[in-house]
Amino acid sequence: MPFIFIFKTLCLFSSLLLSLCLNSSSDLHPLDPLTPSEISQIRSIVKGSNHGSTQNLTFQYVGLDDPDKNTLLSWLLNQANNSKTPPRRAFVIIRNNKQTHEITVDLSTSSIVSDQVYKGYGYPLLTFEEQGAANDLPLKYAPFKESVSKRGLKLSEIVCGSYPIGWFGEMNKKKQRRLVKVLCNYLDGTVNLYARPLEGITMVVDLDTMKITDYDDRITVSVPKAEGTDYRSFQQKPPFDPNASRRTILQVDGPGFNITGHRVRWADWKFHVSFDVRAGPIISIASIYDLKKQEFRHVLYRGYISELFVPYMDPTEEWYYRTFFDAGEYGSGICAVPLEPKTDCPSNAVFMDGFYAGQDGKPIKISNVICVFERSAGDIMWRHTETEIPGEVIREVRPEINLVVRTVLTVGNYDYIIDWEFKQSGSIKVGVGMTGLLEVKGVNYTHTDQIKEEVYGTLLAENTIAVYHDHFLTFYLDLDIDQEDNSFVKCKLQTTKVMDDSSPRKSYWKVVREVAKHESDARIKLGLEPAELLVVNPNERTKVGNYIGYRLIPGFPVAPLLSDDDYPQIRGAFTNYQVWVTPYNKSEKWAGGLYTDQSHGDDTLAIWSLRNRAIENKDIVLWYTVGFHHVPDQEDFPVMPTLHGGFELRPSNFFESNPVLKTKPPKNVEFFQSNLVSSVDDETT
Amino acid sequence: MPFIFIFKTLCLFSSLLLSLCLNSSSDLHPLDPLTPSEISQIRSIVKGSNHGSTQNLTFQYVGLDDPDKNTLLSWLLNQANNSKTPPRRAFVIIRNNKQTHEITVDLSTSSIVSDQVYKGYGYPLLTFEEQGAANDLPLKYAPFKESVSKRGLKLSEIVCGSYPIGWFGEMNKKKQRRLVKVLCNYLDGTVNLYARPLEGITMVVDLDTMKITDYDDRITVSVPKAEGTDYRSFQQKPPFDPNASRRTILQVDGPGFNITGHRVRWADWKFHVSFDVRAGPIISIASIYDLKKQEFRHVLYRGYISELFVPYMDPTEEWYYRTFFDAGEYGSGICAVPLEPKTDCPSNAVFMDGFYAGQDGKPIKISNVICVFERSAGDIMWRHTETEIPGEVIREVRPEINLVVRTVLTVGNYDYIIDWEFKQSGSIKVGVGMTGLLEVKGVNYTHTDQIKEEVYGTLLAENTIAVYHDHFLTFYLDLDIDQEDNSFVKCKLQTTKVMDDSSPRKSYWKVVREVAKHESDARIKLGLEPAELLVVNPNERTKVGNYIGYRLIPGFPVAPLLSDDDYPQIRGAFTNYQVWVTPYNKSEKWAGGLYTDQSHGDDTLAIWSLRNRAIENKDIVLWYTVGFHHVPDQEDFPVMPTLHGGFELRPSNFFESNPVLKTKPPKNVEFFQSNLVSSVDDETT
Repeated sequence: MPFIFIFKTLCLFSSLLLSLCLNSSSDLHPLDPLTPSEISQIRSIVKGSNHGSTQNLTFQYVGLDDPDKNTLLSWLLNQANNSKTPPRRAFVIIRNNKQTHEITVDLSTSSIVSDQVYKGYGYPLLTFEEQGAANDLPLKYAPFKESVSKRGLKLSEIVCGSYPIGWFGEMNKKKQRRLVKVLCNYLDGTVNLYARPLEGITMVVDLDTMKITDYDDRITVSVPKAEGTDYRSFQQKPPFDPNASRRTILQVDGPGFNITGHRVRWADWKFHVSFDVRAGPIISIASIYDLKKQEFRHVLYRGYISELFVPYMDPTEEWYYRTFFDAGEYGSGICAVPLEPKTDCPSNAVFMDGFYAGQDGKPIKISNVICVFERSAGDIMWRHTETEIPGEVIREVRPEINLVVRTVLTVGNYDYIIDWEFKQSGSIKVGVGMTGLLEVKGVNYTHTDQIKEEVYGTLLAENTIAVYHDHFLTFYLDLDIDQEDNSFVKCKLQTTKVMDDSSPRKSYWKVVREVAKHESDARIKLGLEPAELLVVNPNERTKVGNYIGYRLIPGFPVAPLLSDDDYPQIRGAFTNYQVWVTPYNKSEKWAGGLYTDQSHGDDTLAIWSLRNRAIENKDIVLWYTVGFHHVPDQEDFPVMPTLHGGFELRPSNFFESNPVLKTKPPKNVEFFQSNLVSSVDDETT
Repeated sequence: MPFIFIFKTLCLFSSLLLSLCLNSSSDLHPLDPLTPSEISQIRSIVKGSNHGSTQNLTFQYVGLDDPDKNTLLSWLLNQANNSKTPPRRAFVIIRNNKQTHEITVDLSTSSIVSDQVYKGYGYPLLTFEEQGAANDLPLKYAPFKESVSKRGLKLSEIVCGSYPIGWFGEMNKKKQRRLVKVLCNYLDGTVNLYARPLEGITMVVDLDTMKITDYDDRITVSVPKAEGTDYRSFQQKPPFDPNASRRTILQVDGPGFNITGHRVRWADWKFHVSFDVRAGPIISIASIYDLKKQEFRHVLYRGYISELFVPYMDPTEEWYYRTFFDAGEYGSGICAVPLEPKTDCPSNAVFMDGFYAGQDGKPIKISNVICVFERSAGDIMWRHTETEIPGEVIREVRPEINLVVRTVLTVGNYDYIIDWEFKQSGSIKVGVGMTGLLEVKGVNYTHTDQIKEEVYGTLLAENTIAVYHDHFLTFYLDLDIDQEDNSFVKCKLQTTKVMDDSSPRKSYWKVVREVAKHESDARIKLGLEPAELLVVNPNERTKVGNYIGYRLIPGFPVAPLLSDDDYPQIRGAFTNYQVWVTPYNKSEKWAGGLYTDQSHGDDTLAIWSLRNRAIENKDIVLWYTVGFHHVPDQEDFPVMPTLHGGFELRPSNFFESNPVLKTKPPKNVEFFQSNLVSSVDDETT
């Protein structure tokens, strides 16, 4: 108790220490992720049930069972009156005796509320531990050892990885088993294992029995060389790029934001940041203070990446099934990595840790899994110079400072940088940066002139094809514009011809406003017709009568190119449109279905939406997919310069006028450079 | 002479002073903009010719007549041998006795090389001075004074502006006169004059006679109120937004770039920044040092905004002609404004001045018209965390620092923030930010419920309609990938069906490479079919055989919605496609034609391109248009939060591998916050 007291006191004095401060359970916000002690408690409860008697119980998913939206919203409303926090519950998926169980645990009563066997298609998230176990199997498997030796390679330099097998039309349920393909790569002089595939060798592992059930050494292909693949600083040889000049950000007043537990308060924004083993970072109950109305107004009830679909474009034996659903198969949260201070996040960042349950149910910590920082990129929030008024020159400029919540999801080879960026002007901008390593295919070619067949990718280096692929990141965006009941509006921009002599002009465009009544009205392929897409509150208008809302500013429209009847696309049918709107339904969280591994596509957003439910003036959820077609370039090798994408949610007649008009110009900061103490790193690093 | 010596010496020691250092003419780079003394020299030369005898000689355009590309490139090649600088020439457009003259001046011989009367359609840039003279006319014009008094307004609070009249089908050349429409706005309690139009009063001014030739007081409309329109800080009343916490950027080693005259050297980049009264900022001969090849390699010979087309969507009497061509009618350079240190550009920026010739031919200075700064926005250049190798965790992260060359063009009400951003990885990213004030229409409506007719815009406030409009910024991009002879390649992404049982997959996409042979092959409406668009050097390949090139990463595709036969669209036909490619032709600089004011669209990119010239393996120019459809929101009033767009030119198999692999991690900087001296501004500002 005294220990906790000291920590809490420290918390008051240093926001840098905030991430260290774990609140006692009674202080928890109802949306806070499960704490390590809660995760341990859940383990005890499940182990204490009849599941405890078996040896092969594994925890595949342990996460907060968030309170019903109504419960949470009324708790929020009555927070001032010290209303009782909704009971903490967890949703748990376990595997036991080759069965998948869905268990709801009540933490306040330490009891299991429900326990159901899942009997549909598909399997839960792969755990790190079972992947690790599967990856170790080949190294003790005689046929594999023989294949390695036949190729003249060293077994000690081999690292294997687990790949979901997907689904390709097999409907016999009895034959369905929890399988992964295991493929191997080679180190021997590099840490860039993805650059050195043992192309041609495929193993299938049954995760329930943890045995290799199928082995195929189909073709022998040159392993690409190690030279030029290592990306570590100390492995590079001169000549070097010029050193970047050293710089840092000085925040004279300290950070401009406060973090209390998982609640963030910055400028006029307040919101909650959570972390889930499947979704990764989750932004909740984001509200902005309206200076004119003198109140906080709801914007986003919940936002997170619901699925990441990454299909590769090579139909051959070793590649056809590589159609990853990163969130549903591997878990975005499991893949989130500790962020490096001063490089992954700038020097003014504050970090938060994340916790998840390991396969044995015990809590595992990911340090610094989220960082929060004020970004002052040198952008201008608004400005004007007025030279038209005789005798006067007026110049008003407000530089832009935004708040960024960053996570990096490293799903095997790829690193996704996910930025939730809040603007003082009310925008929420989501940035997706893609970097990391390419997944390459070994070939015998060393020059494009030798290639006379389809190779499904770019020859990046000798013996190295980077296979064409897509990235689709589907965001769940439960916008609540002031209240839950909202409508989705398409403001179509339509050419109108002037048919009479009323004007010397022959044409102009007008705005035709269409309110989506049912889900089918809100499925949108972007780029086909110009339109502004809005979520509005049809029950509220500004003083001059405009509907208040938020506008989606999408990125470059990217649509899937697989045929609709192709199995990966059936499972990834939620990418068929970049925009969907559904009525809020607590169970509809995962665009690719709750059990994505080996799913048949029968539980996707595309299927839910077929019911064509009413969405006008309802609590609605907007789904938006950021897409990239990736034709790799040699520059992407051996590590890829970040490619950016994203979208923005921008207030549209939400405020009565520019909400940052009254933002004062920044105060000046002077400093004496001579007072700096610079620590020069060792030249070798 | 000693004075110059001191300046030059100072230049060596402080890059902050560099912008003050005017080189003597012999030190000039052939692409340097005209110096003040050269502008004065040109004035003397022209005044000394037979044009000097008339009273009404006006200088409409004075700019560098840049050397022929071949001349410049061979000078560049032989720079080391102290080869002779190509002769400095100027291109001058004057008006004299109601005629437009094109004059070429040789500065080395102080002579006029050629002087031709332009007899085609259209007129040169409007000068500031003639606009000022036209804007003053109404204040002394009896019918206007009567209209003002009839409305109960104060003449002293009126400010008028000049608007190009456009062209709407009139073909009789004899009737053609150099006219502008003059419209007026009201101050009286605000400096936001654009918010208070005197709707319904239109004057036509003949610029050659400087007289009002037409006057129409057609309708009387309420002038929107001043309240809530002023954007100056001291005019705002509480409650205020929270103060932003103070911050600054410390560059321990000073800026990471060097500026010598107009030449910029940063990281592996070197390029030239110029300034032209019509184009605004011009980036030339941008080359990047290739660490592997140990040489500078050409990327961009020349890049600038060729035209800004801004058509409004209101066909009524006072609005139909508002279809602005900002670069060709007003001049982007004339509209460039002095940048405010620490707000328009961050505290680590270095500034350059610009000069242009006034109507009388005398040099006019725009201080701080360009700023150059290193942007460290907290982004990540590349990273990877490797957790798959047993017993090892590898993390390599390189934060991103870019170099930005910024200009702000304030064309009346709108402020365009133009950023040319250079990345260490070889990308050139162009950012367009739009802020400033909306051009609004006065109406009698105070609530949308009263509106029963088309109003062509959004009711932003009482009596205030913001008219729908577009912004099209057409960029001239003369890419020279290693050499001048390049090809434009469309790599189309095409769905391919698997028709046999060779794969469990039914489809994938492949890349179909099409080299554009003629101009018609390179006119592209984006968003219709997925493709990578590249400028490649067909005469060079990487070691493994890929064509070296740069890829255009476009922004969200925005196409014009006016009908093709509408007069403004005939004049703005260069926006019919977002992408065009033309063979290099020194005279094809201005997408909307050299004489854009009242142009008939007979000298646009769309017309040149009709010749359908060969473009394969030629010196080619890429034209790309950044577009916005703007449906204004109440948040855009009274000043608009910046809306962003842009595009990127990214190396694509230009380098053999990631060119920033060897960039070292940044060195650490420590500082004692206590040593900071902060000057707190007066609370009232």
